[in-house]
Amino acid sequence: MAAKLLTGKEVAAKMDQDIQKEVQELKAKGTNPALRIIIVGDAPDSVFYANSAKKMAEKNGIACEIEQLAGTMSQNDFVALLKQRNADRNIHGIIVMRPFPKQISEDVVKHILAPEKDVDCFNPVNAGKIMAGDLTGFPPATPQAVMEMLKFYEVPMSGKEAVVIGRSMVVGKPMAMLLLQENATVTVCHSRTKDLPGVCRRADIVVAAIGKAKMITPDYIKAGATVMDVGINPEGDKFVGDVNTDAAKETAGAITPVPGGVGTVTTRVLLKHVVKAAKLQNP
Amino acid sequence: MAAKLLTGKEVAAKMDQDIQKEVQELKAKGTNPALRIIIVGDAPDSVFYANSAKKMAEKNGIACEIEQLAGTMSQNDFVALLKQRNADRNIHGIIVMRPFPKQISEDVVKHILAPEKDVDCFNPVNAGKIMAGDLTGFPPATPQAVMEMLKFYEVPMSGKEAVVIGRSMVVGKPMAMLLLQENATVTVCHSRTKDLPGVCRRADIVVAAIGKAKMITPDYIKAGATVMDVGINPEGDKFVGDVNTDAAKETAGAITPVPGGVGTVTTRVLLKHVVKAAKLQNP
Repeated sequence: MAAKLLTGKEVAAKMDQDIQKEVQELKAKGTNPALRIIIVGDAPDSVFYANSAKKMAEKNGIACEIEQLAGTMSQNDFVALLKQRNADRNIHGIIVMRPFPKQISEDVVKHILAPEKDVDCFNPVNAGKIMAGDLTGFPPATPQAVMEMLKFYEVPMSGKEAVVIGRSMVVGKPMAMLLLQENATVTVCHSRTKDLPGVCRRADIVVAAIGKAKMITPDYIKAGATVMDVGINPEGDKFVGDVNTDAAKETAGAITPVPGGVGTVTTRVLLKHVVKAAKLQNP
Repeated sequence: MAAKLLTGKEVAAKMDQDIQKEVQELKAKGTNPALRIIIVGDAPDSVFYANSAKKMAEKNGIACEIEQLAGTMSQNDFVALLKQRNADRNIHGIIVMRPFPKQISEDVVKHILAPEKDVDCFNPVNAGKIMAGDLTGFPPATPQAVMEMLKFYEVPMSGKEAVVIGRSMVVGKPMAMLLLQENATVTVCHSRTKDLPGVCRRADIVVAAIGKAKMITPDYIKAGATVMDVGINPEGDKFVGDVNTDAAKETAGAITPVPGGVGTVTTRVLLKHVVKAAKLQNP
């Protein structure tokens, strides 16, 4: 029996609907939700990402300005600018693109971004809030996108065994915290895990966030498990996930495709966070 | 074969030695490491705890002042006072006793305490730093005490399976992060976990932080596993752990007693953090 494909587009469409409704409500009360994306320098990846986020924001009625700064800007000037944006009541969410040019330290700047505008979990305050289950916090986009998918497709989490492969700050660790919040029993695996296939086979829900193309084969998957593939790895002129989807879908009960899965939902999470930030800032 | 007893007093003695050496070095450079413990009101538990921490600090050469404030103090006044203590260069570590009287919101105050003086992980910035593996952060005392015990007794962690029972912000979740940092494969269990004994039996290292007297019996323990008992539960006029030690020590390879185990080490962790804070503040 082939696995059910958990595609992102239905989830994204439902989120767009919800976001647009909330944006209208905010506007009716005089608040125009606005996102600011800041790029220091001109890294093509950052510019491309920012432009596509801006397009999607505007499609949903959220104002979005991209602020592109000189790659030679000093850290002090950047910190001063960021503080001005923090203080600007017309900006509700701020995304700061990384990597920075080398004169700017991520470890310094991340503490400057106001936590209440930090819609992509750059400031450690937001990581701490996710850990604490504090609902005023903003989880990083990718693990939150996985949660949106699991909830949309009504995958049971409470009392289930979830295994997260990967322990990064952008996916693995916050993913574990979000699954715990839903009462899953959560295991975090990584490169030092012994018998990774065996540990993964315990899971009712596997989240693959490794960054290795097609590494997860059917021997990692319990029959009927839900497999969430967070990987986006270049292969020739295409992108593939961390899961060998064609093979795994014979064992899994449900699986997200790549492309067309979790990645489809991540930008919507950021927009949802901008709306949440605008509401929290204008109670 | 009975388990090896992992007692706290040897660990505490070694930590005292290390702390005293570092305190001397700091003093030689003109820094007198100082801890401030703040109590709002007069809850007997808080006063008792503060007094015993003060005694141990002073024994190790660390100045410690207990600041006991009126239980009727307004939140604004308390925030203003805390900001003064943050700014006081002669105070390196601050512990704020909880619970607060009801006019003071923990959710407000925790963000005020300066992260670099927050030696017991009250501010979410420190939780975020623990998650990120940022070594300038201060983990909560209890999970850090477990790590001190595991390292002192040279219990291998890398590649091992660790199971943490409990998902609180003071023990379970930061414990999981610290074990991950040491390359263990980490599972977090809780009240909704199905087949808790079965999940625990996978573990090479079990950390019990449930708060139920003697709940962990031999059927939760793989032969030879290391069992770290964080529980302190009243039973009659004594305290017992979360583990039924007498029964479990027949199965475990090593086990911490209660009393005389992890709890012996927690105050030393706070003192070690005060020293670390003093060094970071006086580079």
